[in-house]
Amino acid sequence: MTRSIDHSPDVVVVGAGIAGLSVAQRAAARGLRPLVLDGGDLAGGATHVAAGMLAPVAEAAFGEGALLELNLAAAARYPAWVDELTELGGRDPGYRRSGTLLVARDRDQAEALEREADFRRQNGLAVERLTPSRARGVEPALAPTIRLAFSAPDDHAVDPRALTAALLAAIDRGGGEVRAGVRVRELLVESDRVAGVRLQDESELRAGAVVVAAGARSGQLGGLPEHARVPVRPVKGQLLRLRDPAGPGLLDRVLRTEECYVVPRGDGRYVLGATTEERGFDETVTAGALHDLLRDAVEVLPGLAELEVLEASAGLRPGTPDNAPALGPGALAGLHWATGHYRHGILLAPLTGDLVVAGLLGEPVDERFSPTRFAAGVTA
Amino acid sequence: MTRSIDHSPDVVVVGAGIAGLSVAQRAAARGLRPLVLDGGDLAGGATHVAAGMLAPVAEAAFGEGALLELNLAAAARYPAWVDELTELGGRDPGYRRSGTLLVARDRDQAEALEREADFRRQNGLAVERLTPSRARGVEPALAPTIRLAFSAPDDHAVDPRALTAALLAAIDRGGGEVRAGVRVRELLVESDRVAGVRLQDESELRAGAVVVAAGARSGQLGGLPEHARVPVRPVKGQLLRLRDPAGPGLLDRVLRTEECYVVPRGDGRYVLGATTEERGFDETVTAGALHDLLRDAVEVLPGLAELEVLEASAGLRPGTPDNAPALGPGALAGLHWATGHYRHGILLAPLTGDLVVAGLLGEPVDERFSPTRFAAGVTA
Repeated sequence: MTRSIDHSPDVVVVGAGIAGLSVAQRAAARGLRPLVLDGGDLAGGATHVAAGMLAPVAEAAFGEGALLELNLAAAARYPAWVDELTELGGRDPGYRRSGTLLVARDRDQAEALEREADFRRQNGLAVERLTPSRARGVEPALAPTIRLAFSAPDDHAVDPRALTAALLAAIDRGGGEVRAGVRVRELLVESDRVAGVRLQDESELRAGAVVVAAGARSGQLGGLPEHARVPVRPVKGQLLRLRDPAGPGLLDRVLRTEECYVVPRGDGRYVLGATTEERGFDETVTAGALHDLLRDAVEVLPGLAELEVLEASAGLRPGTPDNAPALGPGALAGLHWATGHYRHGILLAPLTGDLVVAGLLGEPVDERFSPTRFAAGVTA
Repeated sequence: MTRSIDHSPDVVVVGAGIAGLSVAQRAAARGLRPLVLDGGDLAGGATHVAAGMLAPVAEAAFGEGALLELNLAAAARYPAWVDELTELGGRDPGYRRSGTLLVARDRDQAEALEREADFRRQNGLAVERLTPSRARGVEPALAPTIRLAFSAPDDHAVDPRALTAALLAAIDRGGGEVRAGVRVRELLVESDRVAGVRLQDESELRAGAVVVAAGARSGQLGGLPEHARVPVRPVKGQLLRLRDPAGPGLLDRVLRTEECYVVPRGDGRYVLGATTEERGFDETVTAGALHDLLRDAVEVLPGLAELEVLEASAGLRPGTPDNAPALGPGALAGLHWATGHYRHGILLAPLTGDLVVAGLLGEPVDERFSPTRFAAGVTA
């Protein structure tokens, strides 16, 4: 079921989600031979569930300046990256320059939204205040009861399932290899150096470097001494995938409220998300989550009630103690990380590839996201 | 993919839902050789979606005296019938003597429920008034905000998927035959007599009698003159199937409100239903329906929010102009009907078999449900 490898890989990537695939694509583009292994499906896990918002402006948060900078750089990198993927693999990555509307549905939310907008303006981010009638002028399906809206014209979206299909094609054409259903049991550590991986079937696979890109399970991989681990916890998100039998037109921009978001794919499909739940490794879809998402979305976008439900799903975001990613060289030689992306895995994909492959090649990397910053004993 | 038939069947049944299977089981038990054909899955369609309430008391409606009588007779017939099926086929049909609670969540509903209860008492049906605290004594998960409840101790439930599996086993042991994926295109009518069916592949299958048990599509079968048709329209219902990871215990009895019902299977699984929508042959699951069902159910049973969502589905109930079933001989010799069961297909299953097979054998049948009663020109 798997192709044999003619030469041993330069780098083994553990995890075929958006992070691992982005690293592999970039590694191949820079002349390395990457091998990606995943115990489950390709582009499964949180990647398969993700809505695909590319929203550094809407996601900007007080006290997360370094992350905002990284998110903005990633958003700026997207157009060239998706062009590169399209050219390499011949598949459309589903990137859509839609812009985003932030909507408040009552006075409290409107006041909070004004403060959020001030904060964004102070950081030089583009947001434009819209009265309810102007907001309904650009998105007529919005409820007449909304109180206020802001436009974030630079926040866009991508379809993660189309994106990962494009990535897989690009990796394939670039000489990288990706295998599903091959579970890595532990890292091989020899003389304080990571020398490869041991698979579930006890076989060993040696490589010059290993990148851990195992999402919410990145902290659980065996073989590493405690001080070399990155503490990652699962943060559950539940989403609904919807379809308008009448085709596109209900909503053009990404819609966000305090409680939910709706991402249009441009073809009549929509993603409604998402809960944020600290419940361990629980991937069940629950009645209460669907209820809350639907209630909150229908209140601002009543026409959503008419949409067909295609899928309800849950995924586990990988969260570090500071909710920022762990990118680059780890505490042992040969050990690299591409994890902890929390809510930003899709957005950060192009920079994840750039940064982690730079680290693999011994080039300087941004120390603010160093995987070793948790070594002082902080645990998730 | 199909077994060949050694002898031509005595009766061809069009449709392998609960109605067709009940007829086939009874036909085989009475010495006939039935052949059931279905263009789709066995026990698919509305049967696969149905919740399985056996609720003549809760479903009793003003002005439907004949139907109430039939429903009560069917409920009374159930225990012996499921015993018979278990003995014949060796499979548990999932019958559960749970009783039902009718719950009002506000004053208006409480007043309506009092009137409903009076009507039932006048018809000799067992209902018992429960204060909210007594209702919560028997079902502690009920919301403290409910206003009133009535117990209907004789309204029970069955698992339609277990029931149809038991029916299929019983038919198989009884010498009947059931084929999935064989679509009947039209009835063969010769000299004002139905002589068999023509399949989608143009082949003909001759039989002494044909029973139309095609659910919501019963009115669309080709080959019949207009005056011989039974007008049946689809009435859409949407439901959710839920599971309690903690096992059974949240709810023991069937719970009904004006807006929804929750049917416990006794093993931690629950069915939440159902919408009633006149939307033609539309089987999509919609965001608005899931929202409304979840909202209404969580209001009376808050713990339902914690349940896992296993499945959301939609089915089409077969409705006649008077919403009562069409059972027995039709307007042409050799033509029989087992359709139009609307909300009562699962409940009426044992009597559907009894009545329709009596008609096949030339015995007298209840004329109140005669399929010919619509011939005056009433259309759905």
